[in-house]
Amino acid sequence: MNRAELCNPQCLATFCVNRSVRDRVKADITEVQAVNPSFKPNLTLIQVGDRSDSSSYIRLKEKACIEAGIEFALKKFPDTVSQQEVLELISALNEDTSVPGILVQLPLPEHINESTIIAAVHPTKDVDGLHPVNVGKLVMRGEAPLIQPCTPKGIMELIRSTGIDPSGKQAVVVGRGDLVGAPTSLLLTSANATVTLCHTKTTNLVDHIKRADILVVAIGQPNFIQGDCIKPGAVVIDVGMNYVPDSTKKSGYKITGDVDYAAASQVAGHITPVPGGVGPMTVAMLMDNIVLSAKEMMD
Amino acid sequence: MNRAELCNPQCLATFCVNRSVRDRVKADITEVQAVNPSFKPNLTLIQVGDRSDSSSYIRLKEKACIEAGIEFALKKFPDTVSQQEVLELISALNEDTSVPGILVQLPLPEHINESTIIAAVHPTKDVDGLHPVNVGKLVMRGEAPLIQPCTPKGIMELIRSTGIDPSGKQAVVVGRGDLVGAPTSLLLTSANATVTLCHTKTTNLVDHIKRADILVVAIGQPNFIQGDCIKPGAVVIDVGMNYVPDSTKKSGYKITGDVDYAAASQVAGHITPVPGGVGPMTVAMLMDNIVLSAKEMMD
Repeated sequence: MNRAELCNPQCLATFCVNRSVRDRVKADITEVQAVNPSFKPNLTLIQVGDRSDSSSYIRLKEKACIEAGIEFALKKFPDTVSQQEVLELISALNEDTSVPGILVQLPLPEHINESTIIAAVHPTKDVDGLHPVNVGKLVMRGEAPLIQPCTPKGIMELIRSTGIDPSGKQAVVVGRGDLVGAPTSLLLTSANATVTLCHTKTTNLVDHIKRADILVVAIGQPNFIQGDCIKPGAVVIDVGMNYVPDSTKKSGYKITGDVDYAAASQVAGHITPVPGGVGPMTVAMLMDNIVLSAKEMMD
Repeated sequence: MNRAELCNPQCLATFCVNRSVRDRVKADITEVQAVNPSFKPNLTLIQVGDRSDSSSYIRLKEKACIEAGIEFALKKFPDTVSQQEVLELISALNEDTSVPGILVQLPLPEHINESTIIAAVHPTKDVDGLHPVNVGKLVMRGEAPLIQPCTPKGIMELIRSTGIDPSGKQAVVVGRGDLVGAPTSLLLTSANATVTLCHTKTTNLVDHIKRADILVVAIGQPNFIQGDCIKPGAVVIDVGMNYVPDSTKKSGYKITGDVDYAAASQVAGHITPVPGGVGPMTVAMLMDNIVLSAKEMMD
Protein backbone atom coordinates (compact mmCIF):
# COMPACT_ATOMS: atom_id res chain seq x y z
CA MET A 1 0.00 0.00 0.00
CA ASN A 2 1.47 3.39 -0.81
CA ARG A 3 1.53 6.54 1.26
CA ALA A 4 -1.55 8.11 -0.35
CA GLU A 5 -3.61 4.99 0.28
CA LEU A 6 -2.56 4.87 3.91
CA CYS A 7 -3.07 8.55 4.66
CA ASN A 8 -6.24 9.42 2.84
CA PRO A 9 -9.63 7.81 3.38
CA GLN A 10 -10.76 8.96 -0.10
CA CYS A 11 -7.85 7.20 -1.75
CA LEU A 12 -9.02 4.10 -3.57
CA ALA A 13 -7.34 1.03 -2.12
CA THR A 14 -5.90 0.12 -5.49
CA PHE A 15 -3.20 -1.95 -3.85
CA CYS A 16 -5.83 -4.25 -2.35
CA VAL A 17 -7.91 -4.47 -5.53
CA ASN A 18 -4.80 -5.23 -7.52
CA ARG A 19 -3.69 -7.87 -5.01
CA SER A 20 -7.08 -9.52 -5.05
CA VAL A 21 -7.12 -9.76 -8.86
CA ARG A 22 -3.64 -11.30 -8.88
CA ASP A 23 -4.55 -13.72 -6.11
CA ARG A 24 -7.71 -14.71 -7.93
CA VAL A 25 -5.78 -15.35 -11.16
CA LYS A 26 -3.20 -17.45 -9.32
CA ALA A 27 -5.88 -19.46 -7.50
CA ASP A 28 -7.74 -19.94 -10.76
CA ILE A 29 -4.67 -21.41 -12.44
CA THR A 30 -4.01 -23.76 -9.53
CA GLU A 31 -7.61 -24.90 -9.56
CA VAL A 32 -7.65 -25.70 -13.28
CA GLN A 33 -4.28 -27.45 -13.04
CA ALA A 34 -5.59 -29.67 -10.24
CA VAL A 35 -8.06 -31.12 -12.72
CA ASN A 36 -6.00 -30.71 -15.85
CA PRO A 37 -2.23 -30.82 -15.16
CA SER A 38 -1.42 -29.99 -18.78
CA PHE A 39 -3.00 -26.52 -18.38
CA LYS A 40 -0.08 -24.14 -18.84
CA PRO A 41 -1.07 -20.52 -19.34
CA ASN A 42 1.83 -18.62 -20.85
CA LEU A 43 2.72 -15.36 -22.51
CA THR A 44 5.02 -14.76 -25.43
CA LEU A 45 6.07 -11.14 -25.47
CA ILE A 46 7.64 -9.66 -28.59
CA GLN A 47 9.98 -6.71 -28.12
CA VAL A 48 11.40 -4.80 -31.06
CA GLY A 49 14.42 -2.64 -30.23
CA ASP A 50 15.66 -1.76 -26.81
CA ARG A 51 13.73 1.22 -25.42
CA SER A 52 14.46 1.45 -21.73
CA ASP A 53 10.85 2.34 -20.81
CA SER A 54 9.60 -0.68 -22.75
CA SER A 55 12.16 -2.88 -21.02
CA SER A 56 10.95 -1.66 -17.60
CA TYR A 57 7.32 -2.44 -18.46
CA ILE A 58 8.33 -5.85 -19.78
CA ARG A 59 10.14 -6.65 -16.54
CA LEU A 60 6.96 -5.78 -14.59
CA LYS A 61 4.94 -8.10 -16.81
CA GLU A 62 7.49 -10.89 -16.50
CA LYS A 63 7.50 -10.56 -12.71
CA ALA A 64 3.69 -10.63 -12.57
CA CYS A 65 3.60 -13.72 -14.79
CA ILE A 66 6.07 -15.59 -12.63
CA GLU A 67 4.20 -14.67 -9.44
CA ALA A 68 0.91 -15.86 -10.93
CA GLY A 69 2.33 -19.13 -12.25
CA ILE A 70 2.26 -18.07 -15.91
CA GLU A 71 5.19 -19.04 -18.10
CA PHE A 72 6.86 -16.08 -19.75
CA ALA A 73 8.89 -16.05 -22.97
CA LEU A 74 10.53 -12.96 -24.47
CA LYS A 75 11.28 -12.82 -28.20
CA LYS A 76 13.56 -9.90 -28.91
CA PHE A 77 14.22 -8.39 -32.30
CA PRO A 78 16.74 -5.63 -33.09
CA ASP A 79 15.04 -2.39 -34.15
CA THR A 80 16.30 -3.01 -37.69
CA VAL A 81 14.04 -6.06 -38.06
CA SER A 82 11.65 -6.00 -41.00
CA GLN A 83 7.90 -5.89 -40.48
CA GLN A 84 7.70 -9.15 -42.43
CA GLU A 85 9.93 -10.98 -39.95
CA VAL A 86 7.75 -9.83 -37.03
CA LEU A 87 4.62 -10.90 -38.92
CA GLU A 88 6.15 -14.32 -39.57
CA LEU A 89 6.82 -14.86 -35.88
CA ILE A 90 3.25 -13.77 -35.02
CA SER A 91 1.89 -16.14 -37.64
CA ALA A 92 3.90 -19.04 -36.18
CA LEU A 93 2.71 -18.19 -32.65
CA ASN A 94 -0.90 -17.96 -33.87
CA GLU A 95 -0.55 -21.53 -35.17
CA ASP A 96 1.19 -22.81 -32.04
CA THR A 97 -1.45 -24.54 -29.93
CA SER A 98 0.77 -24.37 -26.84
CA VAL A 99 0.77 -20.53 -26.88
CA PRO A 100 -2.44 -18.86 -25.66
CA GLY A 101 -1.13 -15.31 -25.19
CA ILE A 102 0.82 -13.08 -27.58
CA LEU A 103 1.72 -9.49 -26.76
CA VAL A 104 3.71 -7.09 -28.93
CA GLN A 105 5.21 -4.38 -26.76
CA LEU A 106 4.33 -0.93 -28.10
CA PRO A 107 5.52 1.48 -29.37
CA LEU A 108 7.22 -0.06 -32.40
CA PRO A 109 9.91 1.58 -34.55
CA GLU A 110 8.54 3.89 -37.24
CA HIS A 111 9.18 1.53 -40.16
CA ILE A 112 6.77 -1.00 -38.66
CA ASN A 113 3.05 -0.36 -38.94
CA GLU A 114 1.51 -0.86 -35.50
CA SER A 115 -2.01 -1.41 -36.85
CA THR A 116 -0.81 -4.15 -39.17
CA ILE A 117 1.03 -5.88 -36.32
CA ILE A 118 -1.90 -5.60 -33.89
CA ALA A 119 -4.34 -6.96 -36.48
CA ALA A 120 -2.00 -9.89 -37.22
CA VAL A 121 -2.34 -11.41 -33.73
CA HIS A 122 -5.23 -13.86 -33.57
CA PRO A 123 -8.10 -12.16 -31.66
CA THR A 124 -8.35 -14.90 -29.00
CA LYS A 125 -4.56 -14.72 -28.40
CA ASP A 126 -4.55 -10.90 -28.33
CA VAL A 127 -4.16 -10.62 -24.55
CA ASP A 128 -3.74 -6.83 -24.83
CA GLY A 129 -7.30 -6.65 -26.24
CA LEU A 130 -6.34 -4.23 -29.01
CA HIS A 131 -7.27 -6.25 -32.12
CA PRO A 132 -10.00 -4.46 -34.17
CA VAL A 133 -12.32 -7.45 -33.73
CA ASN A 134 -11.99 -7.24 -29.95
CA VAL A 135 -12.46 -3.46 -30.01
CA GLY A 136 -15.44 -3.80 -32.38
CA LYS A 137 -17.11 -6.23 -29.98
CA LEU A 138 -16.82 -3.64 -27.20
CA VAL A 139 -19.13 -1.43 -29.26
CA MET A 140 -21.71 -4.06 -30.16
CA ARG A 141 -24.50 -4.78 -27.73
CA GLY A 142 -24.92 -8.42 -26.88
CA GLU A 143 -21.35 -9.06 -28.04
CA ALA A 144 -18.56 -9.14 -25.49
CA PRO A 145 -15.03 -9.87 -26.59
CA LEU A 146 -13.29 -12.68 -24.74
CA ILE A 147 -10.44 -10.26 -24.19
CA GLN A 148 -10.99 -6.67 -23.08
CA PRO A 149 -8.13 -4.15 -23.27
CA CYS A 150 -6.14 -4.29 -20.03
CA THR A 151 -6.20 -0.70 -18.78
CA PRO A 152 -9.95 -0.08 -19.35
CA LYS A 153 -10.70 -3.46 -17.80
CA GLY A 154 -8.59 -2.51 -14.78
CA ILE A 155 -10.41 0.84 -14.53
CA MET A 156 -13.78 -0.91 -14.45
CA GLU A 157 -12.52 -3.25 -11.72
CA LEU A 158 -11.40 -0.23 -9.67
CA ILE A 159 -14.78 1.48 -10.12
CA ARG A 160 -16.60 -1.69 -9.10
CA SER A 161 -14.40 -1.95 -6.00
CA THR A 162 -15.97 1.28 -4.68
CA GLY A 163 -19.37 -0.43 -4.57
CA ILE A 164 -20.79 2.27 -6.85
CA ASP A 165 -22.83 0.92 -9.75
CA PRO A 166 -22.12 2.94 -12.93
CA SER A 167 -25.69 2.36 -14.16
CA GLY A 168 -27.48 5.67 -14.65
CA LYS A 169 -24.43 7.63 -13.50
CA GLN A 170 -22.88 10.44 -15.50
CA ALA A 171 -19.39 9.36 -16.56
CA VAL A 172 -16.91 11.70 -18.19
CA VAL A 173 -13.85 10.32 -19.93
CA VAL A 174 -11.15 12.85 -20.77
CA GLY A 175 -8.91 11.64 -23.60
CA ARG A 176 -9.98 9.51 -26.56
CA GLY A 177 -6.88 7.41 -27.18
CA ASP A 178 -7.03 3.83 -28.45
CA LEU A 179 -5.46 2.32 -25.34
CA VAL A 180 -7.53 3.98 -22.61
CA GLY A 181 -10.04 6.75 -23.31
CA ALA A 182 -12.03 5.36 -26.24
CA PRO A 183 -12.35 1.75 -24.99
CA THR A 184 -13.06 2.90 -21.41
CA SER A 185 -15.96 5.00 -22.69
CA LEU A 186 -17.35 1.87 -24.38
CA LEU A 187 -17.05 -0.27 -21.23
CA LEU A 188 -18.74 2.45 -19.18
CA THR A 189 -21.60 2.62 -21.69
CA SER A 190 -21.93 -1.17 -21.49
CA ALA A 191 -22.18 -0.78 -17.71
CA ASN A 192 -25.12 1.57 -18.34
CA ALA A 193 -23.38 4.85 -17.46
CA THR A 194 -24.20 7.90 -19.56
CA VAL A 195 -20.80 8.71 -21.02
CA THR A 196 -19.42 11.96 -22.35
CA LEU A 197 -16.12 11.51 -24.17
CA CYS A 198 -14.01 14.68 -24.00
CA HIS A 199 -10.80 15.48 -25.86
CA THR A 200 -8.55 18.26 -27.11
CA LYS A 201 -11.35 19.82 -29.16
CA THR A 202 -13.83 19.93 -26.27
CA THR A 203 -14.67 23.55 -25.62
CA ASN A 204 -16.28 23.45 -22.18
CA LEU A 205 -14.31 20.75 -20.41
CA VAL A 206 -14.76 22.12 -16.88
CA ASP A 207 -18.57 22.08 -17.23
CA HIS A 208 -18.46 18.42 -18.19
CA ILE A 209 -16.08 17.48 -15.37
CA LYS A 210 -18.26 19.26 -12.82
CA ARG A 211 -21.14 16.96 -13.77
CA ALA A 212 -19.13 13.71 -13.58
CA ASP A 213 -20.14 11.10 -11.02
CA ILE A 214 -17.35 9.01 -12.52
CA LEU A 215 -14.33 10.80 -13.99
CA VAL A 216 -11.61 9.01 -15.95
CA VAL A 217 -8.66 11.11 -17.08
CA ALA A 218 -6.10 9.83 -19.58
CA ILE A 219 -4.42 12.75 -21.29
CA GLY A 220 -0.81 12.78 -20.10
CA GLN A 221 -0.70 16.33 -18.75
CA PRO A 222 0.48 16.73 -15.15
CA ASN A 223 -2.15 18.09 -12.75
CA PHE A 224 -4.32 19.22 -15.66
CA ILE A 225 -7.58 18.64 -13.77
CA GLN A 226 -7.94 20.98 -10.81
CA GLY A 227 -9.56 19.85 -7.57
CA ASP A 228 -12.25 22.52 -7.66
CA CYS A 229 -13.71 21.04 -10.87
CA ILE A 230 -14.45 17.69 -9.25
CA LYS A 231 -18.05 16.92 -8.29
CA PRO A 232 -18.25 16.20 -4.56
CA GLY A 233 -18.29 12.46 -3.99
CA ALA A 234 -17.15 11.57 -7.52
CA VAL A 235 -15.11 8.49 -8.35
CA VAL A 236 -11.90 9.80 -9.95
CA ILE A 237 -9.67 7.47 -11.95
CA ASP A 238 -6.38 9.11 -12.88
CA VAL A 239 -4.60 7.24 -15.68
CA GLY A 240 -1.85 9.86 -16.14
CA MET A 241 1.80 8.92 -15.57
CA ASN A 242 3.80 12.11 -16.02
CA TYR A 243 7.47 12.54 -15.22
CA VAL A 244 7.90 16.01 -13.70
CA PRO A 245 11.31 17.50 -12.79
CA ASP A 246 11.84 17.51 -9.01
CA SER A 247 15.23 18.49 -7.64
CA THR A 248 14.38 17.08 -4.19
CA LYS A 249 14.29 13.56 -5.65
CA LYS A 250 17.42 11.51 -6.20
CA SER A 251 16.20 10.61 -9.69
CA GLY A 252 15.59 14.28 -10.46
CA TYR A 253 11.90 13.76 -11.19
CA LYS A 254 8.66 12.67 -9.63
CA ILE A 255 5.73 10.85 -11.16
CA THR A 256 2.44 12.70 -11.13
CA GLY A 257 -1.01 12.08 -12.53
CA ASP A 258 -3.31 14.16 -14.74
CA VAL A 259 -5.36 15.20 -11.71
CA ASP A 260 -4.20 17.50 -8.89
CA TYR A 261 -4.42 14.75 -6.30
CA ALA A 262 -3.97 16.88 -3.17
CA ALA A 263 -6.90 19.16 -4.00
CA ALA A 264 -9.10 16.59 -5.75
CA SER A 265 -8.90 14.10 -2.89
CA GLN A 266 -10.54 16.69 -0.64
CA VAL A 267 -13.64 16.61 -2.83
CA ALA A 268 -13.78 13.19 -4.49
CA GLY A 269 -15.52 10.25 -2.91
CA HIS A 270 -12.83 7.91 -4.25
CA ILE A 271 -9.63 8.71 -6.13
CA THR A 272 -6.79 6.61 -7.48
CA PRO A 273 -3.22 7.50 -6.51
CA VAL A 274 -0.41 8.04 -9.03
CA PRO A 275 1.88 6.12 -9.07
CA GLY A 276 0.45 2.83 -7.87
CA GLY A 277 -3.13 3.21 -9.06
CA VAL A 278 -4.16 2.25 -12.56
CA GLY A 279 -0.68 1.17 -13.74
CA PRO A 280 -0.40 -2.03 -11.68
CA MET A 281 -4.06 -2.86 -12.46
CA THR A 282 -3.16 -2.94 -16.16
CA VAL A 283 -0.59 -5.64 -15.47
CA ALA A 284 -3.02 -7.56 -13.23
CA MET A 285 -5.63 -7.54 -15.99
CA LEU A 286 -3.07 -8.78 -18.49
CA MET A 287 -2.61 -11.82 -16.24
CA ASP A 288 -6.39 -12.27 -16.15
CA ASN A 289 -6.56 -12.08 -19.96
CA ILE A 290 -3.79 -14.67 -20.38
CA VAL A 291 -5.75 -17.13 -18.23
CA LEU A 292 -8.98 -16.42 -20.15
CA SER A 293 -7.16 -17.06 -23.40
CA ALA A 294 -5.55 -20.26 -22.08
CA LYS A 295 -8.93 -21.55 -20.92
CA GLU A 296 -10.48 -20.74 -24.30
CA MET A 297 -7.73 -22.72 -25.97
CA MET A 298 -8.35 -25.68 -23.69
CA ASP A 299 -12.07 -25.82 -24.59
CA MET B 1 -38.80 16.95 -51.95
CA ASN B 2 -41.53 16.25 -49.41
CA ARG B 3 -44.03 18.59 -47.84
CA ALA B 4 -41.99 19.32 -44.73
CA GLU B 5 -38.97 20.26 -46.80
CA LEU B 6 -41.01 22.59 -48.98
CA CYS B 7 -42.89 24.31 -46.17
CA ASN B 8 -40.28 24.74 -43.48
CA PRO B 9 -37.05 26.67 -43.82
CA GLN B 10 -35.55 24.73 -40.88
CA CYS B 11 -36.19 21.42 -42.56
CA LEU B 12 -32.98 19.88 -43.79
CA ALA B 13 -33.11 19.43 -47.53
CA THR B 14 -32.49 15.73 -47.23
CA PHE B 15 -33.99 15.11 -50.64
CA CYS B 16 -31.28 17.23 -52.24
CA VAL B 17 -28.44 15.76 -50.17
CA ASN B 18 -29.66 12.28 -50.97
CA ARG B 19 -29.97 13.11 -54.69
CA SER B 20 -26.49 14.56 -54.77
CA VAL B 21 -24.95 11.45 -53.17
CA ARG B 22 -26.73 9.18 -55.65
CA ASP B 23 -25.72 11.38 -58.59
CA ARG B 24 -22.12 11.39 -57.38
CA VAL B 25 -22.09 7.59 -57.08
CA LYS B 26 -23.55 7.19 -60.57
CA ALA B 27 -21.10 9.66 -62.09
CA ASP B 28 -18.25 7.94 -60.28
CA ILE B 29 -19.16 4.56 -61.77
CA THR B 30 -19.43 6.02 -65.29
CA GLU B 31 -16.05 7.71 -64.88
CA VAL B 32 -14.26 4.53 -63.77
CA GLN B 33 -15.95 2.50 -66.50
CA ALA B 34 -14.77 4.98 -69.16
CA VAL B 35 -11.20 3.99 -68.28
CA ASN B 36 -11.87 0.41 -67.22
CA PRO B 37 -14.92 -1.10 -68.98
CA SER B 38 -14.68 -4.27 -66.90
CA PHE B 39 -15.52 -2.31 -63.71
CA LYS B 40 -18.87 -3.72 -62.62
CA PRO B 41 -19.90 -2.75 -59.09
CA ASN B 42 -22.59 -5.12 -57.91
CA LEU B 43 -24.46 -6.20 -54.82
CA THR B 44 -25.47 -9.69 -53.78
CA LEU B 45 -28.24 -9.46 -51.23
CA ILE B 46 -29.12 -12.49 -49.14
CA GLN B 47 -32.69 -12.73 -47.84
CA VAL B 48 -33.76 -15.43 -45.42
CA GLY B 49 -37.51 -15.90 -45.17
CA ASP B 50 -40.17 -13.62 -46.53
CA ARG B 51 -40.85 -10.78 -44.07
CA SER B 52 -42.81 -8.13 -45.88
CA ASP B 53 -40.92 -5.23 -44.29
CA SER B 54 -37.60 -6.81 -45.37
CA SER B 55 -38.97 -7.30 -48.88
CA SER B 56 -39.93 -3.60 -49.04
CA TYR B 57 -36.44 -2.50 -47.97
CA ILE B 58 -34.89 -4.90 -50.46
CA ARG B 59 -36.97 -3.44 -53.29
CA LEU B 60 -35.73 0.06 -52.34
CA LYS B 61 -32.14 -1.15 -52.44
CA GLU B 62 -32.65 -2.92 -55.77
CA LYS B 63 -34.20 0.20 -57.28
CA ALA B 64 -31.34 2.36 -56.02
CA CYS B 65 -28.78 -0.09 -57.43
CA ILE B 66 -30.40 -0.10 -60.85
CA GLU B 67 -30.62 3.71 -60.94
CA ALA B 68 -26.96 4.01 -60.01
CA GLY B 69 -25.77 1.44 -62.52
CA ILE B 70 -24.98 -1.23 -59.94
CA GLU B 71 -25.89 -4.83 -60.75
CA PHE B 72 -28.19 -6.41 -58.20
CA ALA B 73 -28.58 -10.10 -57.37
CA LEU B 74 -30.98 -11.50 -54.80
CA LYS B 75 -30.30 -14.88 -53.19
CA LYS B 76 -33.37 -16.02 -51.33
CA PHE B 77 -33.50 -18.78 -48.75
CA PRO B 78 -36.63 -20.15 -47.08
CA ASP B 79 -36.74 -19.36 -43.35
CA THR B 80 -36.08 -23.03 -42.63
CA VAL B 81 -32.57 -22.78 -44.10
CA SER B 82 -29.75 -23.86 -41.81
CA GLN B 83 -27.13 -21.37 -40.62
CA GLN B 84 -24.50 -23.57 -42.24
CA GLU B 85 -26.09 -23.19 -45.68
CA VAL B 86 -26.10 -19.41 -45.35
CA LEU B 87 -22.46 -19.47 -44.20
CA GLU B 88 -21.53 -21.61 -47.20
CA LEU B 89 -23.05 -19.11 -49.60
CA ILE B 90 -21.26 -16.24 -47.84
CA SER B 91 -17.99 -18.15 -48.04
CA ALA B 92 -18.46 -18.72 -51.79
CA LEU B 93 -19.29 -15.04 -52.32
CA ASN B 94 -16.23 -14.00 -50.28
CA GLU B 95 -14.08 -16.05 -52.66
CA ASP B 96 -15.81 -14.77 -55.80
CA THR B 97 -13.62 -12.01 -57.23
CA SER B 98 -16.50 -10.70 -59.34
CA VAL B 99 -18.58 -9.85 -56.23
CA PRO B 100 -17.51 -6.73 -54.31
CA GLY B 101 -20.59 -6.26 -52.14
CA ILE B 102 -22.44 -8.74 -49.91
CA LEU B 103 -25.39 -7.76 -47.73
CA VAL B 104 -27.43 -10.04 -45.49
CA GLN B 105 -30.83 -8.50 -44.87
CA LEU B 106 -31.57 -8.29 -41.14
CA PRO B 107 -33.34 -9.43 -39.02
CA LEU B 108 -32.69 -13.15 -39.46
CA PRO B 109 -34.86 -15.97 -38.10
CA GLU B 110 -34.13 -16.86 -34.50
CA HIS B 111 -32.29 -20.11 -35.24
CA ILE B 112 -29.61 -18.17 -37.12
CA ASN B 113 -27.03 -16.23 -35.12
CA GLU B 114 -26.81 -12.72 -36.60
CA SER B 115 -23.36 -12.04 -35.13
CA THR B 116 -21.95 -15.20 -36.69
CA ILE B 117 -23.41 -14.28 -40.07
CA ILE B 118 -22.21 -10.66 -39.93
CA ALA B 119 -18.70 -11.74 -38.93
CA ALA B 120 -18.59 -14.26 -41.79
CA VAL B 121 -18.76 -11.61 -44.53
CA HIS B 122 -15.27 -10.46 -45.55
CA PRO B 123 -14.73 -6.97 -44.05
CA THR B 124 -14.00 -5.32 -47.41
CA LYS B 125 -17.18 -6.85 -48.92
CA ASP B 126 -19.28 -5.94 -45.86
CA VAL B 127 -21.10 -3.03 -47.54
CA ASP B 128 -23.39 -2.62 -44.52
CA GLY B 129 -20.28 -1.78 -42.44
CA LEU B 130 -21.33 -4.00 -39.53
CA HIS B 131 -18.41 -6.45 -39.35
CA PRO B 132 -16.60 -6.22 -35.98
CA VAL B 133 -13.35 -5.26 -37.76
CA ASN B 134 -15.07 -2.35 -39.48
CA VAL B 135 -16.76 -1.28 -36.23
CA GLY B 136 -13.47 -1.63 -34.33
CA LYS B 137 -11.73 0.65 -36.81
CA LEU B 138 -14.36 3.33 -36.14
CA VAL B 139 -13.07 3.44 -32.56
CA MET B 140 -9.37 3.52 -33.33
CA ARG B 141 -7.74 6.85 -34.06
CA GLY B 142 -5.74 6.93 -37.25
CA GLU B 143 -7.68 3.90 -38.49
CA ALA B 144 -10.65 4.41 -40.75
CA PRO B 145 -12.52 1.42 -42.08
CA LEU B 146 -12.98 1.32 -45.85
CA ILE B 147 -16.66 0.75 -45.18
CA GLN B 148 -18.60 2.77 -42.61
CA PRO B 149 -22.07 1.64 -41.52
CA CYS B 150 -24.67 3.13 -43.86
CA THR B 151 -27.03 5.00 -41.53
CA PRO B 152 -24.34 6.70 -39.41
CA LYS B 153 -22.47 7.61 -42.60
CA GLY B 154 -25.67 9.12 -43.99
CA ILE B 155 -26.20 11.06 -40.77
CA MET B 156 -22.72 12.56 -41.02
CA GLU B 157 -23.39 13.56 -44.64
CA LEU B 158 -26.62 15.28 -43.56
CA ILE B 159 -24.84 17.14 -40.75
CA ARG B 160 -22.08 18.25 -43.14
CA SER B 161 -24.73 19.48 -45.58
CA THR B 162 -25.78 22.14 -43.05
CA GLY B 163 -22.32 23.70 -43.26
CA ILE B 164 -21.89 23.24 -39.51
CA ASP B 165 -18.56 21.72 -38.49
CA PRO B 166 -19.06 19.22 -35.62
CA SER B 167 -15.59 20.05 -34.23
CA GLY B 168 -15.89 21.38 -30.68
CA LYS B 169 -19.68 21.10 -30.74
CA GLN B 170 -21.68 19.26 -28.09
CA ALA B 171 -23.32 16.26 -29.72
CA VAL B 172 -25.89 14.13 -27.95
CA VAL B 173 -26.83 10.74 -29.36
CA VAL B 174 -29.95 9.16 -27.88
CA GLY B 175 -29.97 5.38 -28.34
CA ARG B 176 -26.93 3.10 -28.29
CA GLY B 177 -27.92 0.43 -30.81
CA ASP B 178 -25.40 -1.33 -33.05
CA LEU B 179 -26.88 -0.01 -36.29
CA VAL B 180 -27.19 3.69 -35.49
CA GLY B 181 -26.55 5.11 -32.01
CA ALA B 182 -23.23 3.53 -31.05
CA PRO B 183 -21.47 3.89 -34.43
CA THR B 184 -22.84 7.43 -34.93
CA SER B 185 -21.34 8.46 -31.59
CA LEU B 186 -17.97 7.13 -32.83
CA LEU B 187 -18.16 9.03 -36.13
CA LEU B 188 -19.10 12.23 -34.30
CA THR B 189 -16.12 11.80 -31.95
CA SER B 190 -13.87 11.27 -34.99
CA ALA B 191 -15.27 14.55 -36.36
CA ASN B 192 -14.10 16.18 -33.10
CA ALA B 193 -17.52 16.69 -31.52
CA THR B 194 -17.81 16.14 -27.76
CA VAL B 195 -20.30 13.30 -27.66
CA THR B 196 -22.65 12.20 -24.88
CA LEU B 197 -24.23 8.83 -25.58
CA CYS B 198 -27.63 8.54 -23.87
CA HIS B 199 -29.82 5.46 -23.51
CA THR B 200 -32.60 3.86 -21.49
CA LYS B 201 -30.60 4.09 -18.25
CA THR B 202 -29.83 7.80 -18.64
CA THR B 203 -31.40 9.60 -15.70
CA ASN B 204 -31.38 13.24 -16.84
CA LEU B 205 -32.01 12.97 -20.55
CA VAL B 206 -33.68 16.36 -20.95
CA ASP B 207 -30.66 18.17 -19.46
CA HIS B 208 -28.40 16.48 -21.98
CA ILE B 209 -30.70 17.25 -24.90
CA LYS B 210 -30.94 20.90 -23.91
CA ARG B 211 -27.16 21.19 -24.29
CA ALA B 212 -26.98 19.51 -27.69
CA ASP B 213 -25.70 21.53 -30.65
CA ILE B 214 -26.14 18.33 -32.63
CA LEU B 215 -28.86 15.90 -31.58
CA VAL B 216 -29.23 12.43 -33.08
CA VAL B 217 -32.21 10.39 -31.91
CA ALA B 218 -32.57 6.68 -32.70
CA ILE B 219 -34.82 5.05 -30.14
CA GLY B 220 -38.00 4.04 -31.98
CA GLN B 221 -40.51 5.87 -29.79
CA PRO B 222 -42.91 8.22 -31.58
CA ASN B 223 -42.52 11.91 -30.67
CA PHE B 224 -40.46 10.99 -27.62
CA ILE B 225 -38.36 14.16 -27.79
CA GLN B 226 -40.42 17.28 -27.15
CA GLY B 227 -39.74 20.49 -29.02
CA ASP B 228 -39.12 22.51 -25.86
CA CYS B 229 -36.06 20.39 -25.01
CA ILE B 230 -34.25 21.33 -28.21
CA LYS B 231 -31.45 23.90 -27.99
CA PRO B 232 -32.25 26.85 -30.25
CA GLY B 233 -30.37 26.50 -33.52
CA ALA B 234 -29.47 22.82 -32.98
CA VAL B 235 -29.05 20.34 -35.82
CA VAL B 236 -31.61 17.61 -35.16
CA ILE B 237 -31.32 14.24 -36.90
CA ASP B 238 -34.36 12.07 -36.32
CA VAL B 239 -33.69 8.42 -37.16
CA GLY B 240 -37.03 7.14 -35.83
CA MET B 241 -39.49 5.41 -38.16
CA ASN B 242 -42.59 4.68 -36.10
CA TYR B 243 -45.89 3.42 -37.46
CA VAL B 244 -48.66 5.18 -35.53
CA PRO B 245 -52.37 4.37 -35.98
CA ASP B 246 -54.14 7.13 -37.95
CA SER B 247 -57.75 6.61 -39.03
CA THR B 248 -57.57 9.54 -41.48
CA LYS B 249 -55.05 7.62 -43.59
CA LYS B 250 -56.09 5.00 -46.12
CA SER B 251 -53.42 2.66 -44.77
CA GLY B 252 -54.69 3.18 -41.21
CA TYR B 253 -51.37 4.50 -39.97
CA LYS B 254 -48.89 7.29 -40.40
CA ILE B 255 -45.11 7.25 -40.09
CA THR B 256 -43.64 9.50 -37.45
CA GLY B 257 -40.19 10.09 -36.02
CA ASP B 258 -38.77 10.03 -32.48
CA VAL B 259 -38.88 13.83 -32.33
CA ASP B 260 -42.02 15.98 -32.20
CA TYR B 261 -41.30 17.58 -35.57
CA ALA B 262 -43.93 20.33 -35.46
CA ALA B 263 -42.66 21.79 -32.19
CA ALA B 264 -38.95 20.99 -32.65
CA SER B 265 -38.78 22.62 -36.07
CA GLN B 266 -39.78 25.92 -34.45
CA VAL B 267 -36.58 25.83 -32.38
CA ALA B 268 -34.01 23.79 -34.30
CA GLY B 269 -31.64 25.35 -36.80
CA HIS B 270 -31.93 22.28 -39.00
CA ILE B 271 -34.10 19.20 -38.64
CA THR B 272 -34.64 16.08 -40.74
CA PRO B 273 -38.17 15.12 -41.75
CA VAL B 274 -39.69 11.68 -41.14
CA PRO B 275 -40.37 9.97 -43.48
CA GLY B 276 -37.93 10.98 -46.20
CA GLY B 277 -35.00 12.04 -44.03
CA VAL B 278 -32.42 9.56 -42.80
CA GLY B 279 -34.03 6.46 -44.38
CA PRO B 280 -33.26 7.24 -48.02
CA MET B 281 -29.75 8.41 -47.01
CA THR B 282 -29.04 4.92 -45.66
CA VAL B 283 -29.76 3.47 -49.08
CA ALA B 284 -27.68 6.18 -50.81
CA MET B 285 -24.73 5.36 -48.55
CA LEU B 286 -25.09 1.68 -49.31
CA MET B 287 -24.58 2.57 -52.99
CA ASP B 288 -21.51 4.59 -52.02
CA ASN B 289 -20.12 1.64 -50.02
CA ILE B 290 -20.64 -0.79 -52.92
CA VAL B 291 -18.61 1.46 -55.20
CA LEU B 292 -15.85 1.83 -52.57
CA SER B 293 -15.72 -1.93 -52.21
CA ALA B 294 -15.67 -2.46 -55.99
CA LYS B 295 -12.81 0.02 -56.37
CA GLU B 296 -10.88 -1.69 -53.57
CA MET B 297 -11.27 -5.00 -55.35
CA MET B 298 -10.02 -3.49 -58.61
CA ASP B 299 -6.80 -2.22 -56.97
